[in-house]
Amino acid sequence: MKIYHASIVYSKNKDELQEFEKAYIVVENDRVEGIYETLPSEYEDAEIIDFKNYVIIPAFSDLHVHAPQYPQRGLAMDKLLSDWLNDYTFPLEAKYKDINYAKDVYNAFTKDLIKHGTMHAAVFSTIHNPASDILVECLEKEHIQSFVGKVNMDINSPNYLKEDTKESIKNTELFVKKHINNKYAKPILTPRFAPTCSFELLEELGHIAKKYNVGMQTHIVESIWERDEAKKCYDGCKCDMEIYEKAGLLNNEPIIAAHFIFPSSRDIKILKEHNGFAIHCPDATTNVIAGIMKTGSLLDKDVKIAIGSDIAAGQYLGIYHQISSAVRLSKIKAFYEKKERSISFTEAFYMATKEAGKIFDYVGTFEKGYYFDALVIGDLEDDFHKLKASEIVERFCYSGEVTNIKHRFLRGKEI
Amino acid sequence: MKIYHASIVYSKNKDELQEFEKAYIVVENDRVEGIYETLPSEYEDAEIIDFKNYVIIPAFSDLHVHAPQYPQRGLAMDKLLSDWLNDYTFPLEAKYKDINYAKDVYNAFTKDLIKHGTMHAAVFSTIHNPASDILVECLEKEHIQSFVGKVNMDINSPNYLKEDTKESIKNTELFVKKHINNKYAKPILTPRFAPTCSFELLEELGHIAKKYNVGMQTHIVESIWERDEAKKCYDGCKCDMEIYEKAGLLNNEPIIAAHFIFPSSRDIKILKEHNGFAIHCPDATTNVIAGIMKTGSLLDKDVKIAIGSDIAAGQYLGIYHQISSAVRLSKIKAFYEKKERSISFTEAFYMATKEAGKIFDYVGTFEKGYYFDALVIGDLEDDFHKLKASEIVERFCYSGEVTNIKHRFLRGKEI
Repeated sequence: MKIYHASIVYSKNKDELQEFEKAYIVVENDRVEGIYETLPSEYEDAEIIDFKNYVIIPAFSDLHVHAPQYPQRGLAMDKLLSDWLNDYTFPLEAKYKDINYAKDVYNAFTKDLIKHGTMHAAVFSTIHNPASDILVECLEKEHIQSFVGKVNMDINSPNYLKEDTKESIKNTELFVKKHINNKYAKPILTPRFAPTCSFELLEELGHIAKKYNVGMQTHIVESIWERDEAKKCYDGCKCDMEIYEKAGLLNNEPIIAAHFIFPSSRDIKILKEHNGFAIHCPDATTNVIAGIMKTGSLLDKDVKIAIGSDIAAGQYLGIYHQISSAVRLSKIKAFYEKKERSISFTEAFYMATKEAGKIFDYVGTFEKGYYFDALVIGDLEDDFHKLKASEIVERFCYSGEVTNIKHRFLRGKEI
Repeated sequence: MKIYHASIVYSKNKDELQEFEKAYIVVENDRVEGIYETLPSEYEDAEIIDFKNYVIIPAFSDLHVHAPQYPQRGLAMDKLLSDWLNDYTFPLEAKYKDINYAKDVYNAFTKDLIKHGTMHAAVFSTIHNPASDILVECLEKEHIQSFVGKVNMDINSPNYLKEDTKESIKNTELFVKKHINNKYAKPILTPRFAPTCSFELLEELGHIAKKYNVGMQTHIVESIWERDEAKKCYDGCKCDMEIYEKAGLLNNEPIIAAHFIFPSSRDIKILKEHNGFAIHCPDATTNVIAGIMKTGSLLDKDVKIAIGSDIAAGQYLGIYHQISSAVRLSKIKAFYEKKERSISFTEAFYMATKEAGKIFDYVGTFEKGYYFDALVIGDLEDDFHKLKASEIVERFCYSGEVTNIKHRFLRGKEI
């Protein structure tokens, strides 16, 4: 048992932060036992670690990140999407046929993810099985609750990054089978997006989903181009989500729809019916000029929204920066589209912690029984201007840097 | 004489970076003597400091920053502008009647500015003379080339932050007189913006401008509200810039027009006629939902644009983050307004270094004779993915943190 003394902030719900100034959080083994403003007498003899004026918050979840694009973060960001993909991203992804390259990158990626306070993630790999296995092993070894996908692309892709349909299906099943019983890093089906997958491939992925009870992550209505292209490719599908529904890919959880910028009402209906999550990647979608998610109105329609760094279309691994970018972008959206509303910091923080955490086991908040996956943040306050705990958290998400993360806990252990 | 061995990047012009991989920069006393790919024989015996794979870039200039708002950075950023000003900013600015508070804040602000690589700045103070003097002294002591303004507000302001017109004029002249012969931190006239200044006040400031040959900084067409309000207040003025022109405030340099989001063609014409600078503060204008500057089309009209952090409407002191935000915002602008274009990283970097530097003496580039005001940046490259020097600079501006600034030089001296 460990007791930590500090201020504590987590999301109670979408509209409320639970905030304790200088309280005690009792951690038994790997889970939160309780939070107390005055320490109960039964704990009086226990060791107390005093984090003074630091603040304890839940570790973040990153629900859309391309690990193989990690070497490319913050580069060629003024290019247009097509040039960025064809000149940078696709040639980079092709390098993962070299497992030594994959080892170097995925080890560095995993360490940097944790350094930035992300302890749960939904991760894209590439089309390559050996490299994808390495990515899974890196995350499993570090006990990162995660969903990892070997990517499928069998049409409309560069020759050096295109799979034969049958091979793609066979390799996907091998990948799923190999990792299905992992404790932390689990497989998820990952068709890149509708324009790069034949319907035959998607249907076979649907069978794998059913056979192994695995979920799916993909890009959904990310751009106007992608939305229109998807509908063109799949005769008889009225929207992007319907393609995956018809292929039988939405019947197993989690369902992770990255971007979700231009959804029709039917896309929204299908996502909600299958308990899916829309993933907001604010910096990414503006870096590659795809558009801005309607965060406010989607929240008001009870769509579940979580946050993604989308490395390397996004430039920061730190999800905290995406929380502030989500608020800022919602203001721009409301400025240009009068029927949209801006979102609050509380809503954005909720998306990146408690809401995203629902995809995993007992993470994202400090309610009793949840894993103590936590960050201790500090050095964010000036002597001449004292802040409330929730203000320290807001400043961290807006103006903070990775050096403001002073301690990291995963399942109760400092790492 | 000092010789530094490293890669070197600076702006040649708006459209070109000057990039040297592992070269030698010779600094004589406080200025750049030259950059050499091979060291000339005359320097062979000189001491060479090898920065290995680090990159040397010019220190940044921040041309719009509110020092008194420093304690408020990254707070209440999901509020609307009016609430943010009335509930947070104005009450905070009123605290600067206490000179001890001013000392604490302005010392911390100056240190943090330098830490973030900004060595030249145009700074707003508050209406208070003693506090404004302290701000000037802090910057002068650190040899920061800067323009500092005691703020004027005599109408439409909260009672606790409103000046009597005559007092405002008298105090402004005292402030200008006191600092006019400073070596580094010089006075600049700083009417907050047209809606908070009577025309009588502006005209008298015009006389001070002429008498002491001092320039002006203010907020120009920052928001639709401000643009319309300004025109209402000043009968017979067709646009915001014209108010200051009529008041005789545009005849002395520098002229610094912060934000410049909704300029009419007349605003643009007047700004250019007086050799003024439009200051882009990308995060700030989206945090407070004012709008997005038309960076691309203004550049194409040869408007001089520099960059500002606009603390505390902006959340980062580091100008490098505003360079990347400027590119990202220009992409959003082009997405929503088809006649606008996105800008390149090279253009944004130029704005924050060489263009902004023109307001000061010999800074913003490493041409011969320029002061060696420089940052040495590093730890931005992965072993498995080597980068060109200009890519390291781009990654710094997109994904970097203050810890990536390894050394800082001001006038040839490491600080």
